[in-house]
Amino acid sequence: MNEITSSQNNYIKSLKKLTKKKERTSQGRYLLDGEHLVGEALKSGTEIEAILYSREFLENHSNLSISDNVETYLLSNEIMKQLSFVPAPQGIMAVVKLPTNKVELKTNQPILVLDNVQDPGNVGTMIRTADAAGFGTVFLGEGTADIYNDKVLRSMQGSHFHIDVIEGTILELMSTLSEKNIPVYGTELNPQAVCYREIKPMEQFALVMGNEGQGVGAEILAQTTKNVYIPIVGEAESLNVAVAAGVLMFALKA
Amino acid sequence: MNEITSSQNNYIKSLKKLTKKKERTSQGRYLLDGEHLVGEALKSGTEIEAILYSREFLENHSNLSISDNVETYLLSNEIMKQLSFVPAPQGIMAVVKLPTNKVELKTNQPILVLDNVQDPGNVGTMIRTADAAGFGTVFLGEGTADIYNDKVLRSMQGSHFHIDVIEGTILELMSTLSEKNIPVYGTELNPQAVCYREIKPMEQFALVMGNEGQGVGAEILAQTTKNVYIPIVGEAESLNVAVAAGVLMFALKA
Repeated sequence: MNEITSSQNNYIKSLKKLTKKKERTSQGRYLLDGEHLVGEALKSGTEIEAILYSREFLENHSNLSISDNVETYLLSNEIMKQLSFVPAPQGIMAVVKLPTNKVELKTNQPILVLDNVQDPGNVGTMIRTADAAGFGTVFLGEGTADIYNDKVLRSMQGSHFHIDVIEGTILELMSTLSEKNIPVYGTELNPQAVCYREIKPMEQFALVMGNEGQGVGAEILAQTTKNVYIPIVGEAESLNVAVAAGVLMFALKA
Repeated sequence: MNEITSSQNNYIKSLKKLTKKKERTSQGRYLLDGEHLVGEALKSGTEIEAILYSREFLENHSNLSISDNVETYLLSNEIMKQLSFVPAPQGIMAVVKLPTNKVELKTNQPILVLDNVQDPGNVGTMIRTADAAGFGTVFLGEGTADIYNDKVLRSMQGSHFHIDVIEGTILELMSTLSEKNIPVYGTELNPQAVCYREIKPMEQFALVMGNEGQGVGAEILAQTTKNVYIPIVGEAESLNVAVAAGVLMFALKA
């Protein structure tokens, strides 16, 4: 195990930059923070470059077994605090390689499509819900928060190790799905759309959720199979997008 | 309009303390931040003690009409920043009286019951969703975040002006509901419970959601009419509690 006590260490300096998407892309790696997420990464078989510990964590977890291919570093509490995304670090982080192999779009399970969803907590929660609901893929369209953002990772709770997450252009995805006769459901706040309760649950479909303020883009809504809405009975003006996605995913999937 | 430029002003000093629940209770008031929430308060007819503005806000909203009973204050940007809950204040806040009249429990609409839900964002989102789903009351049990917490207010988006929010003891509520033959559904992660899809939608019932980590307390689960669960198909271990509440509220309410 390597020990690092200087925050001027070059490896630490490069890891600190991983809060930025551009750096994650150019360095080809991202950081995971905390025991649960690091555990999910280890279970998943994803490629882990290094595991970073605090002394306290090591002392309290004497029976850790880490593969020999993974570098391990003992960090001073101060450096751990500088790298961690939370005010009280658990004392374990992982440096994980960004996946490089291109993921083929699976169409035998439902697909959740996110159009310009900006809040990282919403994006993470929706991926976690898609995983729980038995969706196979989450497709991140233009403007959607990056899944390796620390807040997305925290609310996603490791679900990106279980289901496929693909970035791309929604209109291109829609033409692929159209060729395969897979229905695409847009979501609207407009009661002129179809109430989701009128749609029969299905095995194969895509559901498009939109931006927190503006909803799904007009160009996308114009090309869907149908657009659905959730009837709002009380005086609330709308639902939180992650809650709306949950209601729809569980209602539409057979 | 009164102008305040010193952060040593006594009114400002007392308002700054309103981040604490104890102070809100003893002062009998709470703060709302931002145009949407202040607008919801004005529409609702709730008792407003004062409205606080920044100069920029006033200049950009020349046609504001505020009742003569409401004090108005022009605050320096620095003081507005000190009072506001967000890094970039919109320049309008309200000092709102805590409601004092005791709310009678309505049982003709469904009731959402929160047992020890600690995350303010979750509590606010669930109240907003209950409002949208046509629930009449949210009952805040022991350990649940206070609704006048700024993060709850932000995610609630004004829904506390639309539906009743009551604090109390859940076991007492349950005995009241039991006398009236109103079913109470607990929620569990345990597949031994009943799948929510097997419950026929109803007009009158209570739904109990629990703590983010531990779920609903065992003593409560033992006394419900039935306990329901949401089947998790993928590898996610659980759902976010606010998403789970949304799925169940929309599925169970007739």
